[in-house]
Amino acid sequence: MTQPVPMTELWRGTILESLHLGHAVICDDSGLIVHAWGDPDVTIYPRSSCKMVQALPLLTSGAADKYGLNSEHLALACASHDGAAIHTDRVRAWLSQLDLDEDAFRCGPQEPANIPARDGLIRAGVSPCQIHNNCSGKHTGFLTLCSHMGAGPEYVEVNHPVQQAGLAAFEDTTGQSSPGFGIDGCSAPNFATTVHGLARAMAYFASAADRSDRQSAAAARLTQAMMQHPDLVAGEGRACTELMRAMGGHAAIKTGAEGVYVAIIPEKRLGVALKIADGTTRAAECAIAAILTGLGVLEADHPATRKFMNAPVLSRRGLLAGEIKPTTELMQAFTSA
Amino acid sequence: MTQPVPMTELWRGTILESLHLGHAVICDDSGLIVHAWGDPDVTIYPRSSCKMVQALPLLTSGAADKYGLNSEHLALACASHDGAAIHTDRVRAWLSQLDLDEDAFRCGPQEPANIPARDGLIRAGVSPCQIHNNCSGKHTGFLTLCSHMGAGPEYVEVNHPVQQAGLAAFEDTTGQSSPGFGIDGCSAPNFATTVHGLARAMAYFASAADRSDRQSAAAARLTQAMMQHPDLVAGEGRACTELMRAMGGHAAIKTGAEGVYVAIIPEKRLGVALKIADGTTRAAECAIAAILTGLGVLEADHPATRKFMNAPVLSRRGLLAGEIKPTTELMQAFTSA
Repeated sequence: MTQPVPMTELWRGTILESLHLGHAVICDDSGLIVHAWGDPDVTIYPRSSCKMVQALPLLTSGAADKYGLNSEHLALACASHDGAAIHTDRVRAWLSQLDLDEDAFRCGPQEPANIPARDGLIRAGVSPCQIHNNCSGKHTGFLTLCSHMGAGPEYVEVNHPVQQAGLAAFEDTTGQSSPGFGIDGCSAPNFATTVHGLARAMAYFASAADRSDRQSAAAARLTQAMMQHPDLVAGEGRACTELMRAMGGHAAIKTGAEGVYVAIIPEKRLGVALKIADGTTRAAECAIAAILTGLGVLEADHPATRKFMNAPVLSRRGLLAGEIKPTTELMQAFTSA
Repeated sequence: MTQPVPMTELWRGTILESLHLGHAVICDDSGLIVHAWGDPDVTIYPRSSCKMVQALPLLTSGAADKYGLNSEHLALACASHDGAAIHTDRVRAWLSQLDLDEDAFRCGPQEPANIPARDGLIRAGVSPCQIHNNCSGKHTGFLTLCSHMGAGPEYVEVNHPVQQAGLAAFEDTTGQSSPGFGIDGCSAPNFATTVHGLARAMAYFASAADRSDRQSAAAARLTQAMMQHPDLVAGEGRACTELMRAMGGHAAIKTGAEGVYVAIIPEKRLGVALKIADGTTRAAECAIAAILTGLGVLEADHPATRKFMNAPVLSRRGLLAGEIKPTTELMQAFTSA
């Protein structure tokens, strides 16, 4: 098994303070590897990075059209949002369309990462609820499919028809049998695959507009929804939102917990997946920005790129103490090409 | 150079989801390595883990006695606190003793990690100030020394007498010249050393009661203060506080940003220092608990040990999804002994 390779460095002063290793794959629309770093066959949990795959049955089943879902609903189904009002208002309204309320959720409560939303709850003396959970859009998608299927309320159990439909879409688009699942932060099953399998699924999405089958049409529609609503997929100041805005419709990207990031690049028919071996988000953000820059879909000198690819390390008084940056090992794939 | 070794694993379901590598040294009171993992000579920033070293000149200068500092003050000088009232009330009172107020600080404001303190500020519509900075005890120690010296107000500049006194104590206890410094989160210079150097400094503290010189007396007094006030060194629920309480005076321990942890074990005359190469706190907490357990100063089945050495990974609904644990590579040093 190939070891993970250095991907992201944190320099403070003249010393390398911390180093993140990882695995990454760029995959084409035939499912073949264009470039790999580390071990393409290492098994990972995609975590929230595969929400667009989990959302496929919502569309292919006919549930999305039956309930009149638009691109905002679909972006939220793929989102790890920060619990801002733009997210929670829409999730609340969508639940109402289903004649459901927060009690139908099985994702658990979470304090919003969005500061105004968080502070508003604290000032009002109101506890965060399941609607604030960063996965509440995905779960409303699950509930929509569940209602359409007439299935039981415990929709996060692995044998529930909603999760089995998600597994079928996952294995189809990754091109692999999943070796098993773990319980995600939102209590839904998260199926494992390889980094190559996850990149292959992203290449499936990237090339979906070339095909006319129902699932490919669903993949194209979800990709468009993500690119159309970067603010709904994450939130103000977040990497997914800022980098998608910076790319202006050239790619859809999605973070996953424990250092996962994926990209769908329709114009190049390429999918990208990466996993930072130690699970650190700052490193995954830097590495995906570096790869997108290397592929020519993100400008290196865009302020959003610099914010995540070359994040300044500041003291609490705002003094510049260091920098996060991609490693030579990560970038040389592009400089030597 | 020896590579870092696997130290902490995160398992989700049956799959290893994330892995943290690191370097660690156990050092005796002659400065020799008892056991090392990875590269003992790798250069690191100790960050907040060396606050007890930075506090030595506060005592050796005579400033602590001149201003009547007690063990609570000394524990706060070594603290990375969570901004709870027990910390900020004492820092405020100490500043008053010096006829100073918050404006004298150069550490910058920080939102308290302590939830009741944070929520109290938000409800009152008051911004966090520099007193809430986790390093405000250390900075009040700096200001105390600064007043005693009659030195200028810019006490975090590297050439200021306060920082030069700290550097002298640092090089003396680590037994090495520092190759340079970085700017810490609190804007003070943080001098670099090796993992071995940092462990040697901790062994200096562990054996300080055996010696009668002024600096050794200061080291013994600071170690006692940390062990006597584990609640002031960190805060309720934090690893330093809970693990020191669990050891009941058998060791003083201290975390540092970017995955550093140290331990002072007076009864064994041993010092420990470790650095997680990727800078992750959860891994450093697990690894230091594992080493303290291996050394026989922390009980493996104590609830605090299990909380940090074998932290359960829970979903937001409280389902058990996995576990953080020390690696075989880390533990075999003790099982084969």
